[in-house]
Amino acid sequence: METTIQKAFGEALKQLRLNRGVSQEKYALQIGMDRTYYASVEAGKRNISIQNIQKIAEGFEISLSELFLEVEKHL
Amino acid sequence: METTIQKAFGEALKQLRLNRGVSQEKYALQIGMDRTYYASVEAGKRNISIQNIQKIAEGFEISLSELFLEVEKHL
Repeated sequence: METTIQKAFGEALKQLRLNRGVSQEKYALQIGMDRTYYASVEAGKRNISIQNIQKIAEGFEISLSELFLEVEKHL
Repeated sequence: METTIQKAFGEALKQLRLNRGVSQEKYALQIGMDRTYYASVEAGKRNISIQNIQKIAEGFEISLSELFLEVEKHL
Protein backbone atom coordinates (compact mmCIF):
# COMPACT_ATOMS: atom_id res chain seq x y z
CA MET A 1 0.00 0.00 0.00
CA GLU A 2 1.26 3.45 -0.89
CA THR A 3 1.83 5.92 1.93
CA THR A 4 1.68 9.67 2.08
CA ILE A 5 5.42 10.00 2.54
CA GLN A 6 6.14 7.83 -0.48
CA LYS A 7 3.75 9.87 -2.61
CA ALA A 8 5.14 13.19 -1.38
CA PHE A 9 8.68 11.97 -2.08
CA GLY A 10 7.73 10.90 -5.60
CA GLU A 11 5.96 14.17 -6.36
CA ALA A 12 8.97 16.18 -5.18
CA LEU A 13 11.31 14.10 -7.36
CA LYS A 14 9.13 14.55 -10.40
CA GLN A 15 9.05 18.32 -9.93
CA LEU A 16 12.80 18.58 -9.36
CA ARG A 17 13.45 16.49 -12.46
CA LEU A 18 11.00 18.44 -14.65
CA ASN A 19 12.51 21.72 -13.44
CA ARG A 20 15.78 20.46 -14.90
CA GLY A 21 14.09 19.39 -18.15
CA VAL A 22 15.39 15.82 -17.94
CA SER A 23 13.49 12.64 -18.82
CA GLN A 24 13.03 9.82 -16.29
CA GLU A 25 15.19 7.62 -18.49
CA LYS A 26 18.04 10.12 -18.73
CA TYR A 27 17.97 10.96 -15.01
CA ALA A 28 17.88 7.30 -13.95
CA LEU A 29 20.83 6.59 -16.24
CA GLN A 30 22.71 9.58 -14.81
CA ILE A 31 22.42 8.36 -11.24
CA GLY A 32 22.95 4.69 -12.10
CA MET A 33 19.46 3.57 -11.12
CA ASP A 34 17.20 1.17 -12.99
CA ARG A 35 14.74 3.18 -15.08
CA THR A 36 11.67 1.19 -14.06
CA TYR A 37 12.67 1.36 -10.40
CA TYR A 38 13.12 5.12 -10.63
CA ALA A 39 9.71 5.48 -12.34
CA SER A 40 8.05 3.55 -9.50
CA VAL A 41 9.71 5.83 -6.92
CA GLU A 42 8.29 8.90 -8.70
CA ALA A 43 4.91 7.16 -8.72
CA GLY A 44 5.08 6.85 -4.92
CA LYS A 45 5.17 3.07 -5.01
CA ARG A 46 8.48 2.41 -3.27
CA ASN A 47 9.54 2.48 0.36
CA ILE A 48 12.91 3.80 -0.81
CA SER A 49 16.05 3.33 1.29
CA ILE A 50 18.38 6.00 2.63
CA GLN A 51 21.16 4.93 0.25
CA ASN A 52 18.95 5.44 -2.78
CA ILE A 53 17.62 8.71 -1.35
CA GLN A 54 21.21 9.93 -1.11
CA LYS A 55 21.91 8.83 -4.69
CA ILE A 56 18.93 10.90 -5.86
CA ALA A 57 19.94 13.99 -3.87
CA GLU A 58 23.44 13.77 -5.33
CA GLY A 59 21.96 13.52 -8.83
CA PHE A 60 20.11 16.79 -8.27
CA GLU A 61 23.19 18.31 -6.62
CA ILE A 62 21.24 19.26 -3.52
CA SER A 63 21.67 18.24 0.11
CA LEU A 64 19.41 15.72 1.82
CA SER A 65 17.82 18.47 3.93
CA GLU A 66 17.14 20.52 0.79
CA LEU A 67 15.57 17.48 -0.84
CA PHE A 68 13.29 16.95 2.15
CA LEU A 69 12.30 20.62 2.19
CA GLU A 70 10.89 19.93 -1.29
CA VAL A 71 9.24 16.72 -0.08
CA GLU A 72 7.57 18.60 2.79
CA LYS A 73 5.85 20.88 0.28
CA HIS A 74 3.91 17.80 -0.84
CA LEU A 75 3.00 16.43 2.61
CA MET B 1 28.80 -3.12 4.23
CA GLU B 2 28.09 0.00 6.24
CA THR B 3 28.02 3.26 4.35
CA THR B 4 28.78 6.81 5.38
CA ILE B 5 25.15 7.90 5.13
CA GLN B 6 24.01 5.04 7.35
CA LYS B 7 26.66 5.90 9.94
CA ALA B 8 25.86 9.61 9.83
CA PHE B 9 22.16 8.85 10.22
CA GLY B 10 22.84 6.61 13.20
CA GLU B 11 25.09 9.14 14.89
CA ALA B 12 22.50 11.88 14.46
CA LEU B 13 19.78 9.68 15.95
CA LYS B 14 21.91 8.79 18.92
CA GLN B 15 22.65 12.44 19.63
CA LEU B 16 19.01 13.51 19.27
CA ARG B 17 17.94 10.70 21.59
CA LEU B 18 20.62 11.43 24.21
CA ASN B 19 19.71 15.14 24.11
CA ARG B 20 16.24 14.06 25.20
CA GLY B 21 17.64 11.77 27.89
CA VAL B 22 15.77 8.71 26.65
CA SER B 23 17.07 5.13 26.45
CA GLN B 24 17.11 3.20 23.18
CA GLU B 25 14.56 0.83 24.63
CA LYS B 26 12.18 3.58 25.71
CA TYR B 27 12.49 5.49 22.44
CA ALA B 28 11.98 2.37 20.30
CA LEU B 29 8.90 1.51 22.32
CA GLN B 30 7.61 5.06 21.95
CA ILE B 31 7.77 4.97 18.15
CA GLY B 32 6.61 1.37 17.85
CA MET B 33 9.87 0.02 16.48
CA ASP B 34 11.63 -3.19 17.46
CA ARG B 35 14.35 -2.35 20.01
CA THR B 36 17.08 -4.42 18.36
CA TYR B 37 16.23 -2.97 14.93
CA TYR B 38 16.39 0.56 16.33
CA ALA B 39 19.76 -0.20 17.98
CA SER B 40 21.17 -1.42 14.65
CA VAL B 41 19.98 1.78 12.95
CA GLU B 42 21.84 3.88 15.54
CA ALA B 43 24.88 1.68 14.93
CA GLY B 44 24.76 2.58 11.22
CA LYS B 45 24.04 -0.96 10.16
CA ARG B 46 20.71 -0.49 8.40
CA ASN B 47 19.77 0.86 5.01
CA ILE B 48 16.65 2.30 6.60
CA SER B 49 13.54 3.04 4.53
CA ILE B 50 11.72 6.34 4.15
CA GLN B 51 8.72 5.07 6.15
CA ASN B 52 10.91 4.25 9.14
CA ILE B 53 12.82 7.53 8.74
CA GLN B 54 9.48 9.35 8.98
CA LYS B 55 8.53 7.35 12.06
CA ILE B 56 11.77 8.42 13.73
CA ALA B 57 11.35 12.10 12.81
CA GLU B 58 7.82 12.04 14.24
CA GLY B 59 9.16 10.48 17.43
CA PHE B 60 11.55 13.39 17.87
CA GLU B 61 8.79 15.84 16.86
CA ILE B 62 10.95 17.35 14.15
CA SER B 63 10.46 17.59 10.39
CA LEU B 64 12.32 15.37 7.93
CA SER B 65 14.42 18.31 6.73
CA GLU B 66 15.33 19.17 10.33
CA LEU B 67 16.33 15.55 10.90
CA PHE B 68 18.57 15.59 7.84
CA LEU B 69 20.17 18.88 8.91
CA GLU B 70 21.34 16.91 11.97
CA VAL B 71 22.46 14.00 9.78
CA GLU B 72 24.50 16.37 7.60
CA LYS B 73 26.53 17.44 10.63
CA HIS B 74 27.88 13.87 10.70
CA LEU B 75 28.64 13.50 6.98
